[in-house]
Parts: sequence; structure tokens; C-alpha cells
Amino acid sequence: MKTSSRSVVDPFIVMDVMEAARVAEEEGRHIIHMEVGQPGTPAPVAARAALAEAMQDQAMGYTVALGLPELRARIAGLYREWYGIDLDPARVIVTPGSSGAFILAFTTLFDTGARVGLGEPGYPSYRQILSALDLAPVGIQTSAENRLQPVPADLAGLDLDGLIVASPANPSGTMLDRGAMEGLIHACADQGTSFISDEIYHGIQYEGRAVSALEISDDVYVINSFSKYFSMTGWRVGWMVVPADHVRVIERLAQNMFICPSHGSQLVALAAMDCGGELEGNMDVYRENRRLMLEGLPQAGFDRIAPPDGAFYVYADVSEMTDDSRAFADEILQKAGVAVTPGLDFDPERGAGTLRFSYARAAGDIVEGLARLKAFMAKRGTG
Amino acid sequence: MKTSSRSVVDPFIVMDVMEAARVAEEEGRHIIHMEVGQPGTPAPVAARAALAEAMQDQAMGYTVALGLPELRARIAGLYREWYGIDLDPARVIVTPGSSGAFILAFTTLFDTGARVGLGEPGYPSYRQILSALDLAPVGIQTSAENRLQPVPADLAGLDLDGLIVASPANPSGTMLDRGAMEGLIHACADQGTSFISDEIYHGIQYEGRAVSALEISDDVYVINSFSKYFSMTGWRVGWMVVPADHVRVIERLAQNMFICPSHGSQLVALAAMDCGGELEGNMDVYRENRRLMLEGLPQAGFDRIAPPDGAFYVYADVSEMTDDSRAFADEILQKAGVAVTPGLDFDPERGAGTLRFSYARAAGDIVEGLARLKAFMAKRGTG
Repeated sequence: MKTSSRSVVDPFIVMDVMEAARVAEEEGRHIIHMEVGQPGTPAPVAARAALAEAMQDQAMGYTVALGLPELRARIAGLYREWYGIDLDPARVIVTPGSSGAFILAFTTLFDTGARVGLGEPGYPSYRQILSALDLAPVGIQTSAENRLQPVPADLAGLDLDGLIVASPANPSGTMLDRGAMEGLIHACADQGTSFISDEIYHGIQYEGRAVSALEISDDVYVINSFSKYFSMTGWRVGWMVVPADHVRVIERLAQNMFICPSHGSQLVALAAMDCGGELEGNMDVYRENRRLMLEGLPQAGFDRIAPPDGAFYVYADVSEMTDDSRAFADEILQKAGVAVTPGLDFDPERGAGTLRFSYARAAGDIVEGLARLKAFMAKRGTG
Repeated sequence: MKTSSRSVVDPFIVMDVMEAARVAEEEGRHIIHMEVGQPGTPAPVAARAALAEAMQDQAMGYTVALGLPELRARIAGLYREWYGIDLDPARVIVTPGSSGAFILAFTTLFDTGARVGLGEPGYPSYRQILSALDLAPVGIQTSAENRLQPVPADLAGLDLDGLIVASPANPSGTMLDRGAMEGLIHACADQGTSFISDEIYHGIQYEGRAVSALEISDDVYVINSFSKYFSMTGWRVGWMVVPADHVRVIERLAQNMFICPSHGSQLVALAAMDCGGELEGNMDVYRENRRLMLEGLPQAGFDRIAPPDGAFYVYADVSEMTDDSRAFADEILQKAGVAVTPGLDFDPERGAGTLRFSYARAAGDIVEGLARLKAFMAKRGTG
């Protein structure tokens, strides 16, 4: 049997870093992990306790495809708490992670060959999921002046069927303010381009609050997840909010493609939404880590960085130090004992000159990692 | 924003039955559920306990995309226990349910427009997932003489890129014996048709044991799940076994499309594989339910049934009683208080004359359901 053309997607280069880090650890070395894109914390205590209790006396079979009604209602409530908007729970669709939401959204909105724009640098899986569905990803090179986010002028002549944006973004951490978001949504509406807003890092923000596309229009897709702010990566549960008249179509797709998101994970998610205290504790750690990074990285010589408005990443332009970020990341791993992500996964064009530093782990690791980076760069002599 | 053509998939007709049953229950009526396709039992006790314990001190973030290595190894071991074959754990891919496995398998094997054969009656989601991926499902009308399974002669002239079979099958419960499976695999190999074997009901068998496609060839895709025999529907964890040279391609797809199956669900699955005693207890219930069904359904007048070799369904030809199985199912619900599934979901051509009865629930429900069906049919006068 042979494999299809659509199945040939790019490898994640960060996987090579992770494998090299694993080998180094197996050899007895101590590695600081600044390559990972997930919290080091588990799901909130009370959320895990809720599942443990439910498991005692519930069969926990399939839920309905769109998710537990009480979870959908609670998510709708979050839009009041976070953004002050009323949202009909019927428009909320619980998904197997934001990954499942992307598959459903792309399938619902686009036919084979459709052109879907995405800012570069950006989350690499947008591109790969689109390719796997035989859709055409269209990379948009963003600029530092525009906070590494696309702007309406970038869309001209691209003839896009869809545009996906992320704010706060991965890998840059930059946000779209209300005006920027509005400009993109209106430009898309004018051009008949479906607008998808990836809001997975909402809640993890340091300078002002992230704006939801739903504050501007109901004719958008918003994708979010319990992975980041709610510290639930491994549970694979996310959601999306869609126009009311798309719900029935998506329900049928979800019934067939996923049946439902994990019942247990939905119960954890529901309880996690009442764990504000613990989650804000996690935020305190990210806030301190970010402060350490913004102080320490420039001291090490990494001073050309995107404004880290949210998420837990710093994206650095290292093009004056290297034209091979992959080799540079390997050098940092081998000589400094710090795992970082080369930018190539996020930006095929300019990523050879960038690195992503994650600060999602414990503050002690960040202090140690920064000390190692400073020492390494001082010795290397390019800092 | 408008929706795509590929997103328009058929509704599940059984959903209308379930909704009607829910309304009836809300009105205070007591309904026996023979429409559901899942065990009434939870995951095994010790499996739930394993998760409860792990949750206490593990962060449970993302696992690697192909699944926990110890789970993949344990699944490989199952092939020795169940079929006496050695299987390299590297060929085992843990997926978000068999649903996730279908998405990965179809994406890996087929390009847009590829023709994929499926026996009718059959699991409706094959068709809908294929359509959502812009592939072309090709229905193969099967015959009672062939146990409602496709045979090599059916493939002639169809020019198939792929064929998917299920044994034991849903809705019929019929199995392919070794010769029948071999015939199909060889016919597919001769015609360059990729062969996918859905083995989700393996373990739930009454007359002899189900044959795995892996006993015949390594050049096949085998899809399975923890949902049925392991009683874990709501946990959404399954697996597939693929040719060794496809693993790397699928790994990259899975990294991007799913990141990983739920970490917690993988831990439940791993522990469930050591819960043979409890699982065989579930089997005792199915066995008794089946005996009751094979005795009671003919007494009620449902005597034209497919050989129920495995799974927990009886598929009945009711074409002499109705040419509208949907209306008939509604009549049975309203007058007998028993929810059953009209065959239209499984067979668009002949399903107006068939019904599926599930016996996955407690034996007491089966006894009561059969009594109601007998009384209803006696009164109706067509039994």
C-alpha cells in the first residue's frame, strides 16, 4: 500500500531538539526545557477531584457530540466574565482540543483547494492540517512593525477563502488590539473571506487583556482550549464558537468524525472553570518568569524580541548571530544545556534566523536557564 | 460565512429516535433502550482506580503523538494473546478513538476523489468521514448468503482505491471467517486496493473467535478501540496497526491533527488491559442477552435476522412488515416503549426494511424489552 500526497506534511523540527534533549538526559546531563509549549502544572486540584468522584458512580459513556450541555453553558458564561458579551450556549461546540476544532472548522468552511491565509511566524499545525485536508495554506509574511501579525493590506490580491489569526500568538506572544482585530475582520468580511480567530492563549496576558473576535462580530469562528490557561494540555478538550446557522452542520460532522470529546476530560474542564484561585497562581508564576526573561534574555544578548503581550513565549530575532537556527539551537543544547525551539517550524522563510524561548515551567528553571544562556553567550562572544 | 460542500453529511436517523425517547421519558414514560451502540457498563474498576491514582501526582501533559510507549507495547502483546501473532509495538498507533484512527487512515492512504468501498449495511460514519475528507464512498450492497459482508466478486469493476470491512460488523454482528477475510485481502492486493479492517468488536464474539486481518497480511490497516470490549466508549481511545513504513508519515499527521490522544484515557486503557475478569463478566451479560434475544425476537415475529456472531446487535429484515423502518421504529417507541434503530443509517438502499436491536445493556432491560415487543407485535397482528 502506498501513502497519499496529502499525508506528506513537514516534520516538526522541535522534535529533533526534544529527542536530542532526551538523549542528553539519558546520558546523565541536566537540561533546562525552554522548548516546550505547555504548562508544567497539572489540571487544577479540584478539577481532578471532580473527575475522581464522578468515576466512582457514573458510567461515563459517550456524551452528545457538541459536548455536555452544562459545559457549553459554562463556557458561554466565560464570555460574559472575560469580555462582557452575552453568548448563546447553543453556539458553543466542545471539541477534542483546539486540534479537533481546527479539523471541524476547516472542514465546515472550506472545499478542496480553498486558500487559507495564516501569518508567519505562526503555529505550524495550521498549515499541516490544511494540507492534510487538501486545502491550500497561504503564508503571509508579517513584519515587526505590525507586531508579527497580518494587517488588512497584506490580504490584497491573495484571493483568500479564509484567514486564521492568533492573539496572543505562538511563537511571538504578540496580541492584536481591538483596532487591529476589527480591521482584519472587516477586511475579511468585505472580501468574502471566512475569519477564524485562534484564542487559545486568552487568559495568559500581561499588558491589557486579549480581545476576542466575538466582541466585534458574530460572523466569525473562535477557537479556544482548556490546554493553556486552564493547564489541561493532556486532557485534549477545547471549544469553538460559530455562527448560529453553522451549528447543525458541525454537529453532524462532529457526530461522525469524533462522536464526542472525552467525557472524563469534559468533566475536568467543567470543574476547572471554577478554579480561578489556582489558575491565577499559575499566572503569577508566568508573570514572574516573563519578568525574568525580559531582564535576562537581553543580558545574554537576545535583545531583538517581539512584544510578549501574552502566552508564555519570547520570540527572538537571532539573524545577526546565525543563519541556521537549527544548528544554533543544537549548539545551545549541547553547550549550555538549554533546549530551545528553532524558528523554522513557525516561519519557513525567516525562521532560520529566529528562536523561540518558552517560559511555561517553574521559575527556578527559568533562573537557571537564563544563567546558562548568559554564560554560554559570553563565552561564544556574539552576545 | 458559508459552509462547504464537503461538510454536508447525512444526519443520523437514530438521533431522532433518541430525541423522541428522551421526550417520552421527560413525559414520565419508561423506555427500554435497544437503540444505543455502547455498553451500559463503565470502564473497569481497576482502570478507573489507576487514573485516580495517577492524577494525584502526575502533571499528565501531552504524550508523544503515537501514544504512551507502554500502552503501545501492551497492545502489541494483545495480538499474541488473542491471535498468537508477534507484532512490533512500533507499528501500533494509539488514536483518539477509532474515529481518530479512521481520519488518520483515510488521510494517509487516500487523495481527493479516491474511491473507497464499504459494505452495506455498515457503520454510517465511514461514509460521512470519507465525504468530509472529499473522498468518494462506494457502497457495496451485500447479500444474506454472504452474511451481509462483501465478497471478492463484489469488487469487480468498482476500481477501488480502498476497501473497509468490519468483522464482527455493525449493525449485523456477522463475522468474516478466515477464508472470507483472506479472499478479500488477496483480491484487494491484486487490484492495488488498500485494505482496512475495522476490528472494533473483537473480543465480543460468541461462535468461534474473530479473525484479525493481521493474521493474513502485514500490508493492511487494522483499526480497533477500547470502546466496546474494554467498555470505554466515553474515554475516546483506540488504536491502529499499520505497515511499518507508514508509521513515520502517520506520526507527523497525528502530531499536527491531534497532538495526542487524551493522556488520562490512555492510562485508563493501559490498566483496563489487565482487567480480564471484569471484562469477561461483561461478556457473560452479553452472552445471556444474546440468548434472550435469539429466543425472544423470533417469538415476537422478528425471525429474519443476520447470524449474530459477535458485537451486541441483532439486525432484522422487517421488509414484510413495513417499507418505512423510520415510521415503524417510531411506532415501536410510542406503542411498545422500546427504542430501536431504523436500518436507514446503515443501508441507504434497503434500510427502509430493516431494524437494529442492541443488547448492550443490562439483562433485566432485555427481558422487559422483549416482553413489550411480543405484546406489541401480537396486538399489531403482523408478528
